[in-house]
Amino acid sequence: MMKVIMAGFGTVGQGVAKVIEEKNSSIKKRLGEGFEIVGVSDSKGAIYNPEGLNLELLLKIKREKGAVISYPDVEKLKSNEELINREADVLIEVTPTDIESGRAVDDILYAFRSKKHVVTSNKGPLTLNFKGLNEEAAKNGCMFYYTATVGGCTRMIDVGRGLSNGAAIISFQGILNGTSNYILSRMTDEEAPYELILREAQQLGYAETDPSHDVDGIDTACKLVILANSVMGLESSLKDVKIEGITGISEDGVKLAKSDGKVIKLIGEIEKSRLEVSPRLVPKGHFLDISGTLNLGLFKTDFAGDIAIMGRGAGQMETASAILGDLNKIISQTR
Amino acid sequence: MMKVIMAGFGTVGQGVAKVIEEKNSSIKKRLGEGFEIVGVSDSKGAIYNPEGLNLELLLKIKREKGAVISYPDVEKLKSNEELINREADVLIEVTPTDIESGRAVDDILYAFRSKKHVVTSNKGPLTLNFKGLNEEAAKNGCMFYYTATVGGCTRMIDVGRGLSNGAAIISFQGILNGTSNYILSRMTDEEAPYELILREAQQLGYAETDPSHDVDGIDTACKLVILANSVMGLESSLKDVKIEGITGISEDGVKLAKSDGKVIKLIGEIEKSRLEVSPRLVPKGHFLDISGTLNLGLFKTDFAGDIAIMGRGAGQMETASAILGDLNKIISQTR
Repeated sequence: MMKVIMAGFGTVGQGVAKVIEEKNSSIKKRLGEGFEIVGVSDSKGAIYNPEGLNLELLLKIKREKGAVISYPDVEKLKSNEELINREADVLIEVTPTDIESGRAVDDILYAFRSKKHVVTSNKGPLTLNFKGLNEEAAKNGCMFYYTATVGGCTRMIDVGRGLSNGAAIISFQGILNGTSNYILSRMTDEEAPYELILREAQQLGYAETDPSHDVDGIDTACKLVILANSVMGLESSLKDVKIEGITGISEDGVKLAKSDGKVIKLIGEIEKSRLEVSPRLVPKGHFLDISGTLNLGLFKTDFAGDIAIMGRGAGQMETASAILGDLNKIISQTR
Repeated sequence: MMKVIMAGFGTVGQGVAKVIEEKNSSIKKRLGEGFEIVGVSDSKGAIYNPEGLNLELLLKIKREKGAVISYPDVEKLKSNEELINREADVLIEVTPTDIESGRAVDDILYAFRSKKHVVTSNKGPLTLNFKGLNEEAAKNGCMFYYTATVGGCTRMIDVGRGLSNGAAIISFQGILNGTSNYILSRMTDEEAPYELILREAQQLGYAETDPSHDVDGIDTACKLVILANSVMGLESSLKDVKIEGITGISEDGVKLAKSDGKVIKLIGEIEKSRLEVSPRLVPKGHFLDISGTLNLGLFKTDFAGDIAIMGRGAGQMETASAILGDLNKIISQTR
């Protein structure tokens, strides 16, 4: 069994526990080895048991008591660092994206130094220190996968890397933030003002209580940085991205576009070394006119023409599925 | 240098020579090793030079004399078997798809037995003997890639395999034949009869002189078989596919659909172990309503939702780009 520790046990972490619980026996059958979650942390503390945790019980305790430290008969730890220090093969880093503190950067670096492979859905560390993390992984002979950070289960990074194996990628355009795409779609359909639709999106759970990273374009910008660095070989960081969000878009602007047969979309674009996030006019019915919380990535290449990939960019099980795919890559390569 | 021999030097083979010529130096820089084409065959014979062939000269001779055996100062051979017998690391099999004779099956099996990796764009051998070929490859420790056979440069097989790493694929729907999609799109746009549009497509080079495999649904069926076997773990063959082509679609049928807000598309579908190719009604503006010679694949999964990939399914450089991607996979794994 491949021993896994998990930093973070919110929506995504619980999703990962659920998919492992559900798929472990079929993975064992297919790849000859399955996973065992031996440690988990959340904001209240961490637990560790080298024999493995019962995932059903773990999910129940988190749901009922709100903290993993209520799990019975296991070693209790105070920090992620202590947890990462314990014996395991892989760290799954699924704490919320934080592009300021760099705490997750330190945790991931520490995992590599203690020879653990890392899988993450956290855009923060990759945006803050893409090169440093990848170099430390390579130095320690560790694998480092982060498929869930861009376009969720569309696996946009893998698609781009695969393409670049046989063609040169000239540019990328994408709709990478489901929240802002949902708001823009609804503003167009309802001809209603931004604030009203935002409140509605918050009630439906499509927007966070603090939606600023989504609607200000920061989330899209982080994803562009990760994609540009991992697929197109750039060494970009957040400060290189020209960013304009959707908060300044008025009801009148949306109506005007609509009367002209167009829709407004928040587009992330990479062209040569230029990274830009901005609202753009797209003809109604165009390729990029996707609705709701979908994500879409369009790669323009020299020999392979234009390739588009589309799917759900977020969601608990979708993100967990991308993480499970990364875990399976590690199993396949360590057999 | 990785030594490559190529069986077939038509449109695709010449495209491969062009992309290798263009990309070889960047591949050497990136992967530490490039490719050297040491042998080529066409219907008139084969040539071999262990020191490598000059690709510019090879393309010129094929263009001007019509046969690779006019290439000067090289060993001339009579058959693909003799060519495959020569020293090389990889066989690129790019003869035209032939789902009857099984000649390409024998060539590929012979390549594996002489410890050569194989890359092919040829649907014939994979449709005729998917299991046998893959088993022989494994037995001899050889790699076997065929990305170009389904959806060309969209790399639909890789996308499906990647998805299935983190989710279960429940079903697949695709538009996999550019010729029939072009004909149906034009019939709808022009409200013109099948025969007229087919002749126009032939004049424009979008349909072969003998278009039967495309319009009868056989080409789509072959692609379904390859996808079902390589991505969804089935052991299907062409006789398992229920096939209906587009030749029976009348001008009136297209008009009737159009007046009802629908378009007719030739859809290939895999659901559980059922494979089917048939014309279906799709709402105008729907996801599957792609125009012209595009290809689209839609995977429905359990945890990752619906994922669609779209791009050009055919074309000389697109196919060559998919083959180059496969060659690069081999280099990456043999370093």
